[in-house]
Amino acid sequence: MSVKVEVSFSPVLYPHKLIKEDFVVVIVDIFRATTSICAAIHYGIKEIIPVSSKEEAKEHKEKGYVVACESNGSTLDFADIGNSPSDFLKKGFRGKSIVFSTTNGTSVINLAKKDADMVVIGSFINLTAISEFLISHNKSVVILCAAWKNLFDLEDSLFAGALSELLINAGFKTECDSAKASIDLWDKARTNLAGYLSESSHRNRLKHLVSDEDYEFTTSIDISETVPVLEGDRLIKAGNLKMGALHDTFIKISNNH
Amino acid sequence: MSVKVEVSFSPVLYPHKLIKEDFVVVIVDIFRATTSICAAIHYGIKEIIPVSSKEEAKEHKEKGYVVACESNGSTLDFADIGNSPSDFLKKGFRGKSIVFSTTNGTSVINLAKKDADMVVIGSFINLTAISEFLISHNKSVVILCAAWKNLFDLEDSLFAGALSELLINAGFKTECDSAKASIDLWDKARTNLAGYLSESSHRNRLKHLVSDEDYEFTTSIDISETVPVLEGDRLIKAGNLKMGALHDTFIKISNNH
Repeated sequence: MSVKVEVSFSPVLYPHKLIKEDFVVVIVDIFRATTSICAAIHYGIKEIIPVSSKEEAKEHKEKGYVVACESNGSTLDFADIGNSPSDFLKKGFRGKSIVFSTTNGTSVINLAKKDADMVVIGSFINLTAISEFLISHNKSVVILCAAWKNLFDLEDSLFAGALSELLINAGFKTECDSAKASIDLWDKARTNLAGYLSESSHRNRLKHLVSDEDYEFTTSIDISETVPVLEGDRLIKAGNLKMGALHDTFIKISNNH
Repeated sequence: MSVKVEVSFSPVLYPHKLIKEDFVVVIVDIFRATTSICAAIHYGIKEIIPVSSKEEAKEHKEKGYVVACESNGSTLDFADIGNSPSDFLKKGFRGKSIVFSTTNGTSVINLAKKDADMVVIGSFINLTAISEFLISHNKSVVILCAAWKNLFDLEDSLFAGALSELLINAGFKTECDSAKASIDLWDKARTNLAGYLSESSHRNRLKHLVSDEDYEFTTSIDISETVPVLEGDRLIKAGNLKMGALHDTFIKISNNH
């Protein structure tokens, strides 16, 4: 039986998915959680520990962890950094564990953990690496968009389309209209991803929170070969991949630290 | 304040919608419930009474109603007709009430009734009429796709795109990525709707249930000027619209009755 790919445009659609067993979930939250996680793991952070509340993040801070925690785009008092990708790219953080407070991210990871064989973190920055990792595993794939307030969003759906296309080109099948729709949307956006997304409701909403530099970073394609996977409660670098070299874009956004 | 349009790709996304008050809901289930209802009301059926179970349909049959009820594409023993659009276009039915058993359709109508000011039934066959009706009402619009097993489907989403585009061209605003995505999908499909949909999972699933004639009918655009609206528990013709003439396509599919 051939392996399949399916797309859930929102966590509330995920329980209705057609693929029920023996699959890998790819979690996507382009602006910004999964891009930040991919960037951090690529950069050499040992592991990311996602937690679901500020309180939990604060407890970890008191235990000596480096903590990433923000509210409405501002780094909280007790935290070391916020959750923008560039926040994680500080030389002193290499080899360390970072606790990442992300309410939505943690609930999506917990949702996926319930029935998936493996949970992988996806973003445009490691698109091709993710596809190669999934193709080599040869299991069905569910792409789970974190969405915004559970609503369909364009940036996560476009990533789903880009990844679905790579998997289908490699022989994956799909019975899911979401995959077909996301591929057609991706086809419309691929030559100018940042431009296409600049019209999306989410980008408009985030405009005062996300710097132009971060926006450029989250829409950069294939600047990393690192794939973060969930092991227990921690996100680590997938074992069988080579250490990615630091791409110019990484050097650019970590230059000031 | 300007009026808005928003798209819910599935009933499970509807509770998360951004528009919360003072809006009209357009329910869409292209293959086949809403197309059948639009066709029936256009053809001169007095009213459609949607019920949520076979048992309820059977009780109505015993009271003397004409009953439309099918299971997996076959008309049930006790029923007069199934739920294909052509089933409703029988000369003897004009002016009558028809009880329509549709589990999904009834639950979606009940969902919309809870908070909408008005519930309207949409399909490609009355696309422009629906848009003109909504523009003349000048209230915000939520397009609610009935979906298939709560999953995103292409045919309902394409209709949402076609209608959103007409509303936005008339001055409606949107803050919703679903509307933007559905318009872009519609843009890809508009020149060959039936061809584009023939690849969709739903059409493949229905292939052995939906005749080519019905398929052609459900993807016909603007062959009716009739808009069905919900009044109490019944779907009737909106009052302020002129009686549509019978389009050739209606005559074609009702020719054998």
